[in-house]
Amino acid sequence: MLESFFQPKSVAVIGASANPDKLGYAVLKNALDSGYAGKIYPINPKAGNILGCPAFASVEDIPETPDLAVVVIPYPQVPSALESCGRKGIGSVVIISAGFREAGYEGMKRETEVIQIAKRYGIRVIGPNCLGVIDTFTPLNVTFAAGTPPKGPIAFMSQSGALGTAILDWSLAGSRIGFSKFVSLGNKADISEIDLMLAWADDPHTRVILAYSEGLPDGQAFMRTARQVSRKKPIIVVKSGVTQAGSRAVSSHTGSLAGSEQAYAAAFKQAGVLRAETMQDLFDYALGFAYQPLLKGDRVAIVTNAGGPGILCTDALERAGLSLTRFESATTTALQEFLPDAASAANPVDVLGDALADRYHFALEKVASDPNVDGIIVIVTPQAMTEIEATAKAIGETAKQIGAARDIPILSCIMGEYRVSEAVDKLAADYGVPNYPFPERAASAFAAMRDYRVLRDHPDPKPTRFEVDNDHVRAVIRKVREDGRVSIGDSESREILSAYKLRIPQAKLAATADEAVAFADQIGYPVVLKIASPDILHKTDVGGVKVNLTNANDVRDAFDLIVYRAGRYVPGAVIWGCLVQEMLPKGMEILVGMNRDPQFGPLVTFGLGGIYVEVLKDVTFRVAPFDQTQANEMLGEIRSHHLLDGVRGAPPADKAAIIETLLKISQLVTDFPEIVELDINPLLVYDQGRGAVSLDMRLVLASK
Amino acid sequence: MLESFFQPKSVAVIGASANPDKLGYAVLKNALDSGYAGKIYPINPKAGNILGCPAFASVEDIPETPDLAVVVIPYPQVPSALESCGRKGIGSVVIISAGFREAGYEGMKRETEVIQIAKRYGIRVIGPNCLGVIDTFTPLNVTFAAGTPPKGPIAFMSQSGALGTAILDWSLAGSRIGFSKFVSLGNKADISEIDLMLAWADDPHTRVILAYSEGLPDGQAFMRTARQVSRKKPIIVVKSGVTQAGSRAVSSHTGSLAGSEQAYAAAFKQAGVLRAETMQDLFDYALGFAYQPLLKGDRVAIVTNAGGPGILCTDALERAGLSLTRFESATTTALQEFLPDAASAANPVDVLGDALADRYHFALEKVASDPNVDGIIVIVTPQAMTEIEATAKAIGETAKQIGAARDIPILSCIMGEYRVSEAVDKLAADYGVPNYPFPERAASAFAAMRDYRVLRDHPDPKPTRFEVDNDHVRAVIRKVREDGRVSIGDSESREILSAYKLRIPQAKLAATADEAVAFADQIGYPVVLKIASPDILHKTDVGGVKVNLTNANDVRDAFDLIVYRAGRYVPGAVIWGCLVQEMLPKGMEILVGMNRDPQFGPLVTFGLGGIYVEVLKDVTFRVAPFDQTQANEMLGEIRSHHLLDGVRGAPPADKAAIIETLLKISQLVTDFPEIVELDINPLLVYDQGRGAVSLDMRLVLASK
Repeated sequence: MLESFFQPKSVAVIGASANPDKLGYAVLKNALDSGYAGKIYPINPKAGNILGCPAFASVEDIPETPDLAVVVIPYPQVPSALESCGRKGIGSVVIISAGFREAGYEGMKRETEVIQIAKRYGIRVIGPNCLGVIDTFTPLNVTFAAGTPPKGPIAFMSQSGALGTAILDWSLAGSRIGFSKFVSLGNKADISEIDLMLAWADDPHTRVILAYSEGLPDGQAFMRTARQVSRKKPIIVVKSGVTQAGSRAVSSHTGSLAGSEQAYAAAFKQAGVLRAETMQDLFDYALGFAYQPLLKGDRVAIVTNAGGPGILCTDALERAGLSLTRFESATTTALQEFLPDAASAANPVDVLGDALADRYHFALEKVASDPNVDGIIVIVTPQAMTEIEATAKAIGETAKQIGAARDIPILSCIMGEYRVSEAVDKLAADYGVPNYPFPERAASAFAAMRDYRVLRDHPDPKPTRFEVDNDHVRAVIRKVREDGRVSIGDSESREILSAYKLRIPQAKLAATADEAVAFADQIGYPVVLKIASPDILHKTDVGGVKVNLTNANDVRDAFDLIVYRAGRYVPGAVIWGCLVQEMLPKGMEILVGMNRDPQFGPLVTFGLGGIYVEVLKDVTFRVAPFDQTQANEMLGEIRSHHLLDGVRGAPPADKAAIIETLLKISQLVTDFPEIVELDINPLLVYDQGRGAVSLDMRLVLASK
Repeated sequence: MLESFFQPKSVAVIGASANPDKLGYAVLKNALDSGYAGKIYPINPKAGNILGCPAFASVEDIPETPDLAVVVIPYPQVPSALESCGRKGIGSVVIISAGFREAGYEGMKRETEVIQIAKRYGIRVIGPNCLGVIDTFTPLNVTFAAGTPPKGPIAFMSQSGALGTAILDWSLAGSRIGFSKFVSLGNKADISEIDLMLAWADDPHTRVILAYSEGLPDGQAFMRTARQVSRKKPIIVVKSGVTQAGSRAVSSHTGSLAGSEQAYAAAFKQAGVLRAETMQDLFDYALGFAYQPLLKGDRVAIVTNAGGPGILCTDALERAGLSLTRFESATTTALQEFLPDAASAANPVDVLGDALADRYHFALEKVASDPNVDGIIVIVTPQAMTEIEATAKAIGETAKQIGAARDIPILSCIMGEYRVSEAVDKLAADYGVPNYPFPERAASAFAAMRDYRVLRDHPDPKPTRFEVDNDHVRAVIRKVREDGRVSIGDSESREILSAYKLRIPQAKLAATADEAVAFADQIGYPVVLKIASPDILHKTDVGGVKVNLTNANDVRDAFDLIVYRAGRYVPGAVIWGCLVQEMLPKGMEILVGMNRDPQFGPLVTFGLGGIYVEVLKDVTFRVAPFDQTQANEMLGEIRSHHLLDGVRGAPPADKAAIIETLLKISQLVTDFPEIVELDINPLLVYDQGRGAVSLDMRLVLASK
C-alpha cells in the first residue's frame, strides 16, 4: 500500500528551482543526491534544465506518467497543479506547499478545494504544509530537510515537520540510529497515521513505527488499525497537547474526570500502542526495538565494572517492575572461578574497575548463556585501565554470537563521551547494539519492551453480545425527543436499564401522596421516595430524596415535602410525582459512567462511588466497545481495587455483576451513539454471588 | 574549611611511580599536568627522580611540611605511611588505596586502624578506596582519572569513583559543563557528604553542589547541615539503592508503610535538598542552576520556530506545575507588528520555520523584557534556512544583556546534533546558556529551579515545646523495663498520652467482671470493653474488643468472653482484665504513627485511618522533630486531604487537634529515643473546634 510514495518508478517535482534559496531547489537536490535510481522530472514553466535535469512546463508534458508528484509551489497554484496531475493519471502527490488549514479560514477553504480535486481523480495526498517524504531503502528523499538520514529499521511519521528536521539532524551526527522511512504528515488532509501504520505493517525494512502526533481525529479507526498492526511490530507514539485539552469544558460529573488525556491513555492501551512521555523516551525505546530482539521475560542481568551505576540500574529496573535474575549455579560458579575475589559473581555482576576486555567477554558469555537471563544491560565506566574499544567489541561479539542465537536483547551503557564516543558509534554500526548514556535509560528501554510484549499479547477483544430490548430503548429515546428534552431522568432510565436486563430496585411512579402510600404498602417497608421530574437531574441537591420511610405517614409527609421543595427550587419544572422505591440493603457503591470523547467516542468510566470518585479521583477508563477481559482489567486498575476483594474480613464484592454492568453499558452506548453522557451512580454491589442493583441512572442525549 | 584538600600550598604523593601502569604514576602525572602552582613531592623509597620531580623516601624527609598527602600504595603500607604523615604534621590526607571496608571483615579492621591513627594525629581523611580530589580553580588534580575537567561552577562529590570518571569523561567532550571541584568519597571513613557540603557552602567558585550517594549513615547530622547550606546554594542528590532497602524486614504496621525510600523523601524535603531521580536529571538540573539565574516566579515564556516542540514544552511545563505567562499587551503588540502574519505573538511565541537570527533576536528581546516573564525556553529546530550559529548568538546576547540585567534564566533547546553541535558548544562557552536536546528536559530544569526555590524559602523549623510530664513517661517506661517487656499496651499508653495532655477516652482497668460493671455504671453507658494484656498488641485480632455495650448484663458477658478468648488465642498471655472505656461518638479516623529509620531516626506517619492507610497506602512522613508548618503540610500531602476539609456537606475536621497530636508525638519520640515504634490508631477527630481523642495507642521500646 502507498508504494508509489515510497518506491515510485519516477518522480515529478512541481516547482523545482535552480535558485538555491527556494525550497523547490532543496527538494530536487535531495532527490538527486539521495541516490534515487528512477527518473526525476523537474516541473518549472521557466527553466529548461535544472541541476542537470531537463525541465517540463507541466507534468502533462512528461513523456511517461510518473508514480509520484511532489508539489512545492505557492498555494494559489496548487489546485491547477493537482488538476494537471489528475489529468496525467498521477496517483500519489506530496504537497509541501503551505498556506492551507494552518493559515486560517481561507486556507481551510483552499485545503477543501484541493482535497476535492484529489478525490475526483483518485489521488492520494500527503500534506499539505509538510516537509516531504524519505525512503532510505529505495532510496529517495523528496524533502527540503538538510540531508538524508542513515538507513535503519525505524519508520517515523511526524505531524511536526520541524521536529522531523531535528531528529534527522540528530541521526546524521553518528551511526547510532537509522531510519527506513520518514514522513512529514503536515495537515493530514488525506493520508494520516492510520494509512501509514497500515502501509508499514508489512514493510520488510521497518521493525518499529514511531509517530509524533498532535491529534487523532478518527480515533476509533486509529484504534482498529493500530490494534492490528501492533501485533506485528511496535508502534510508539508521542502525543502532545494533552494537558491543555484537559481543560476543555465538560459539563457532566463523569466528564470532569475524563478529559482527553484519559481517553488517549485508554485508547492506546486498548490498541496496543506504546506511549512515550517525551521525545527522549520515544527514541530511547525505538533504539532497543529497532536493533535488538524483544525482551521475552522479565529477568534481567547486569554486568558492570562499577558498583554505583549497577545500583542505579537495579533501582531503575525494580521501579519499572522488572527483576534481577538469579543465575544458574553453574554460571555463578564459572564467574567465581574466573573473576577476581573482590568481584561479584551474583547479579549485578561486578567485574571490577580494573576489568580488561577479556574479563568482560568471559562474564558476558557466561551470563548471556544462562537460561535464566532474558536480557542484559552492560555498563562500562571509562576507568584508568578500561579498554573501551575492545570492551565494546566484546559486547558486540556476545550480542552477535549468543544474543542472536538465544534471541535475547543486549543493551549497552558505555558511560561518558570524550573517550567513548567512537567505540559507541562502532558498537552500533558493527553490531547493532544500542548505547544509552545512563543506566536508567537502558532500564527504561527494557521496560518499554516488556510493556510492548504485554500490549501485543493482549487477546483481541471478543465482544459479548447481550440479548436486550433495543426497541424499547429506542421508544424511550423517541419519547424524550418528542418532548424536546435531552436529559433522561430516573423513571425513564429505569426502562432502559430494564430493557438491558440490569437489576433495578422495585419502584412505581406515584402521582399523588395516596398513590405513594398504596405503592409503599405493595412494595413493603422501608421505602425510598425520589422526585420524578424530567427537569431535575441532581435530585439530592433539591432535597428530592427521602430514605428509610418505615410507615404510611412518613411516606405521605415525604411526598408532600419533596414535591413542595422541587417546585420551590426549580420553578416551572414539570413534576410527575415521586418514585416509590424499595429500600435496598447496603452494598458497595460503584460508579459506572460514560461520556463521549471527541476523538475516540464513548469513554466508559469505572470507580468506587462517593469519595473515591469525587475526592480521590480513583477511576479508570475504556473506550467502548470493550470485552470481558478488558472490563475485568478495569476492576484491577483502580487504586482501591483491594476493596473489591474484601478487606478487614469483609467478603469479596460481586465482580461478575460489575463486569456485566460495564459490558451492557458498553453495548448500550455503542448501539445508541445519541447517548452522550450517562452515569449509574451508585451501582449497589453486594457480596459475591448476590448481584448488583443500579440504584440511579442519569443519561443525556446529544442535542440535535 | 578543608582548604588543605583543595588549595594546599604543597602536596606529597605517597606511592608516586615512574611506571605508567601504576596508579601512582597517573596521580602524579595529573597533579603535574593540572597546572598546579605549588610544590609536588613524589614519595617513593626507590626512585630518585619521578617525572622530573626529586623523590623522597618518606614524607618525613621533605624539607617543608606539605598541606596535603595523597596515598596511593598497597594497603598493608597505609598505616605506617599515615604515621609518617602524622609525625610530619600533615593535616589532610587522601587515601586512594583500596583493600579496606569494601574488602570484607579484614579490610574493615584495617580501616578502623587507619582512622584511629588519623584521629590520634588530628588528620582529616578522604577515602580510602577512592579516585582522588580535583579543584579546577587552584588548579590541582590528584586523581587517577583520565584528564582534568573544564572549570565551572559545579562541585560534585560521588560515593562511586567510577561514576565520577564517567561524568568527567563526559565533561571533557565539549565546553558544555564545568566543575569547580570533584571529590571521590570512597568509603567515607572520615570525611563525608556533610563535611563537604559545609566546606563548599561558602566556596566562591561553586554555585551548585551535586552528590551521588549510596547511604547517609548520620542522617540527622546530614539534615542539619544540608538545611543550613541549602539556604545558600542548591544541593542536588541522586540517592541510589532505595528500592532494595524498601524490602528490609519491619515488623510493625507503620513500618511496613515507611521503608527507607519514604525516609529519604521526607528528610530531603525537610533539609531543602533537591532529589534527582536519575543521573540524567542530576546534570540537567545542575546545568540550569550552574549557569543561569534562579527562576523567581512560575511564569515561563517559550520562543520557538516550530509548533510541535512548542506544544511538547507547554505540556511538560504544565505537567510540572509551571505556567505559560501572559505577556503585557505592549509585548504582544510589538511582536505582532514585527513578526509575519502567520506567526504567533502569544505564548508560546512561534517565530515560524523561516525565522532568521534577527527575528529570533527581536522576539527574544521583547519577551525577555516583559515583566510578566520569569524565565524563557528558546527552541530552535534546524530547518532549511535556520541560521543556527547566529541564532545561538542571539540567544546568548539576550541572556547577557537582558537576562542578566533582569536576573531571569534563559535555557536553550537547539534540537538535533549534526548541524547544531558547534553552536551549542559556543553558546555554553561564550554565554553560559545551557542547552537541552529536548524541550521536556529544559522544562524539567525549570521545574527543579522552582522546587529549589520552594525548598530554600521554607522557614527554619520553629519547634513548639509543649509542657508535658516526662517524669511520668519515664516512670511508665521504667516499669515496662522492670517487667522485662518491650511493648506497651493500651492501659499504660493511656498514661503516656495523659502525660502529654492528649485527650483519651474515660476508662478504667477492671480485673473482674464485677469491677467492669461497676466502672461502666460510673462512666455511663454505652461503653467499650478491651482486653488488657501486655502480651496482646492487636486486640481485635483475638476478639479482644466489644463495643456499644448498653447495660450491665452485656458488660458482664463481654468481659467473660474477651478474657476467655484471649487466653485461648494467646496461651500463657498475662491478662490484667479488661479496660472499660467510654463509647465515643463517631469521628474521622486518623492514624499517627512512628517508626525509627536506621539513617534518619524517628519517622512520623500521618494518614486517614482504616482503608486509606491499609488499602490505599495514603500516608505521608516527616522526620521528627518537626514544627507546626511542617505538620500542617503533612495534612495537605495525603491524596485524601480534601476529606479533612469536609466534602459533600460535611463540616471540616479539627485540623488543629491533628496538628497538636503530630507535634506532641514528634516531641515524645524525640525526648524518648528508646521508643522505636508507636501507633495511635485511630485518633478520632471531630468537627473543627471539637478536638480529637486518641482511642488506642501501641508502643514498642528498643530491646536493650
